Amino acid sequence: MTCVSFITDYGLADGFVAACHGMILRTVPTARILDITHLVPPGDVRRAAAVLAQTVESLPRGVHLAVVDPGVGTARRAVALRAAGGDLVGPDNGLLIAAAERLGGVQAAVTLPVPAGTPATFHGRDVFAPAAAELAGGTELAALGAPLDPATLVRLPAPHARLRPDGVLEAEVLLVDTFGNVQLAAAGPLLADAGLHPPARARLWAVALDAGDAGTDPATRVTELAVGVTFASVQSGELVLYVDAAGMAALAVRDGDAARALAVAPADRLAICRVGDGD
Amino acid sequence: MTCVSFITDYGLADGFVAACHGMILRTVPTARILDITHLVPPGDVRRAAAVLAQTVESLPRGVHLAVVDPGVGTARRAVALRAAGGDLVGPDNGLLIAAAERLGGVQAAVTLPVPAGTPATFHGRDVFAPAAAELAGGTELAALGAPLDPATLVRLPAPHARLRPDGVLEAEVLLVDTFGNVQLAAAGPLLADAGLHPPARARLWAVALDAGDAGTDPATRVTELAVGVTFASVQSGELVLYVDAAGMAALAVRDGDAARALAVAPADRLAICRVGDGD
Amino acid sequence: MTCVSFITDYGLADGFVAACHGMILRTVPTARILDITHLVPPGDVRRAAAVLAQTVESLPRGVHLAVVDPGVGTARRAVALRAAGGDLVGPDNGLLIAAAERLGGVQAAVTLPVPAGTPATFHGRDVFAPAAAELAGGTELAALGAPLDPATLVRLPAPHARLRPDGVLEAEVLLVDTFGNVQLAAAGPLLADAGLHPPARARLWAVALDAGDAGTDPATRVTELAVGVTFASVQSGELVLYVDAAGMAALAVRDGDAARALAVAPADRLAICRVGDGD
Repeated sequence: MTCVSFITDYGLADGFVAACHGMILRTVPTARILDITHLVPPGDVRRAAAVLAQTVESLPRGVHLAVVDPGVGTARRAVALRAAGGDLVGPDNGLLIAAAERLGGVQAAVTLPVPAGTPATFHGRDVFAPAAAELAGGTELAALGAPLDPATLVRLPAPHARLRPDGVLEAEVLLVDTFGNVQLAAAGPLLADAGLHPPARARLWAVALDAGDAGTDPATRVTELAVGVTFASVQSGELVLYVDAAGMAALAVRDGDAARALAVAPADRLAICRVGDGD
Repeated sequence: MTCVSFITDYGLADGFVAACHGMILRTVPTARILDITHLVPPGDVRRAAAVLAQTVESLPRGVHLAVVDPGVGTARRAVALRAAGGDLVGPDNGLLIAAAERLGGVQAAVTLPVPAGTPATFHGRDVFAPAAAELAGGTELAALGAPLDPATLVRLPAPHARLRPDGVLEAEVLLVDTFGNVQLAAAGPLLADAGLHPPARARLWAVALDAGDAGTDPATRVTELAVGVTFASVQSGELVLYVDAAGMAALAVRDGDAARALAVAPADRLAICRVGDGD
Repeated sequence: MTCVSFITDYGLADGFVAACHGMILRTVPTARILDITHLVPPGDVRRAAAVLAQTVESLPRGVHLAVVDPGVGTARRAVALRAAGGDLVGPDNGLLIAAAERLGGVQAAVTLPVPAGTPATFHGRDVFAPAAAELAGGTELAALGAPLDPATLVRLPAPHARLRPDGVLEAEVLLVDTFGNVQLAAAGPLLADAGLHPPARARLWAVALDAGDAGTDPATRVTELAVGVTFASVQSGELVLYVDAAGMAALAVRDGDAARALAVAPADRLAICRVGDGD
């Protein structure tokens, strides 16, 4: 039983997800379909790419079908990629790249043809799910379409994360989860490089996109918080900086919602420094 | 592995959907259950019927279980239907008819008995899921209940769609999807009959239920829009009229929400004419 | 194919549920995973315990994985329980007990070890799902961890329900479902003991937590309603008291939302008496 994982922005209120499941099962009745989420905000390729990349290593080897495709019906390519650890199918808009890299990097890629007469608005059902089904059923990648040079695949800009010369860690908000936990684009080792290993106290503030290497405290509100290992490193209602289960720096409020408490959203930039070290 | 598709208004926050899955799997452990949606607004039989009908052709042959049942516990019949392309199980309130017609029309039907002592509020778990499981397991339709005359099945009123004598297409809003795309009750060919084939410009306005054949422009706000083939036929933020992936006339705002932009909801009536032809 | 049921407060917008599915399927590719709900409000152990208990009897025999775990990363134990009717895996915070009792009561229990280096914030993926997978794959309970005395398992306080000396039924709101139906902590027989069997009229009012055995009417708004067997026992828009499909006393508004109409929420206490008997 080959596993097909599936992520979209189709929502759960229509029949779109089921139509794609149906197209897969009509070709490969024994396929195992594993829904990642279908609640990606409409067209939010960046969020979908991050969720897929952070989930894929927990999934069985198989095919990963991802459709967040605001460019459906335009000249954007439909692609299937082969990585050492699995196959990926979706639009060529950057959605698949981070996951492919977690699976060992793109080894080969093809452009999926769109048959004449295919409706222009539902390539999930009509192009991508059928291709994923073919791969799940054992069809060779090369049989699905014309080969393309992986170097030409569209890539999303890398999210901002850096250690400033003054020792301050600067990072973009990558994901906010159901609990309001705020994941930063900084991986755990970068947090350690900034001296932010528990137990410690830190200082946090928002930075403008063009702030440069300013070492002085900004005009925005500064929050003090603990550096810990889990929610329970602090008291209920308190803020904690920790390395999350995806290995990324994250902010949480114990029994609360950090995104709301800090009034931050994906793509916002935060600066963090160890108290007593960086200022 | 027989496939059982499943659509309800049970929501996803309770254990109702799982209880029905459980009842099916206890009878047929190898059944494949394919959830269409469980987020039908409570009691919205009309929406559920449309979503089921538009999804069913993409699904594997099998049993289609649909439970949107505001009359549970009343004298409304519980039924199982056989069509050329599959079986359907649910309440006799019109929910199953459009899907049955997509599957070739009702060939036979039975009334499902409700055993004495069955709780009066959860026929999904206690009547419909068990019947679907029996069909999935190979039980003959005739063994499930007393035969009934398909002509006596309850039908929903046909949604309004017509080409007026003055060449204006008038159609009810059938579905609004997750993206805010507005599907009209008019099938693609009716759109063509109104001269609304791309590329063209059109004029759109709301009409009252009792407007008759008035050829003059109404007092309501008139919107101009493009007739295209997909979202990308227009610029971001612009409105487009197109034939959607279910073959129906639809309105979308590229990268936006047409239902919100137009302030329309299911059952609202819209009039559309080609600019320069119909007024 | 062993069935693993799964309930969490992970929501459906992230990859957390899929990561757990993946961990199970990597160990037992043939496991059947049956999602109960993942929309438990964050940290609401009480609601999750009630939903799990009321669903479990409709599910196939197997493993029940439940993760609503505000204490993740603290000293709270991770446990696996064996009952006559199935196994349960989750945090030792009371979540599993009511379901275990529906399955015949806890016969044996073990503490699941948390390997050194396990991230402190996602025991669903890293501790609980792997344990559920082991049980689904046939591993003996005793092989999963050190035995623990079931008498030491954490239990939730029993929800309030009693028949007052003056014949008034007093009960806490246990669950509000998708439809706004209000389930009370009183089982059907207690309703009958209070003389509240259909057809009858009843009187309903809210009581404070420390109201004692006051036999007089309270200062709060008193509602009159019918005692019936289903929603259709009353006219559209009217309130009905009935025994629901889980065997519990419940309040509904036909074609409406009783929780909204009554402005009640879980843990609120209501008093109900038969009209003409209790006052």
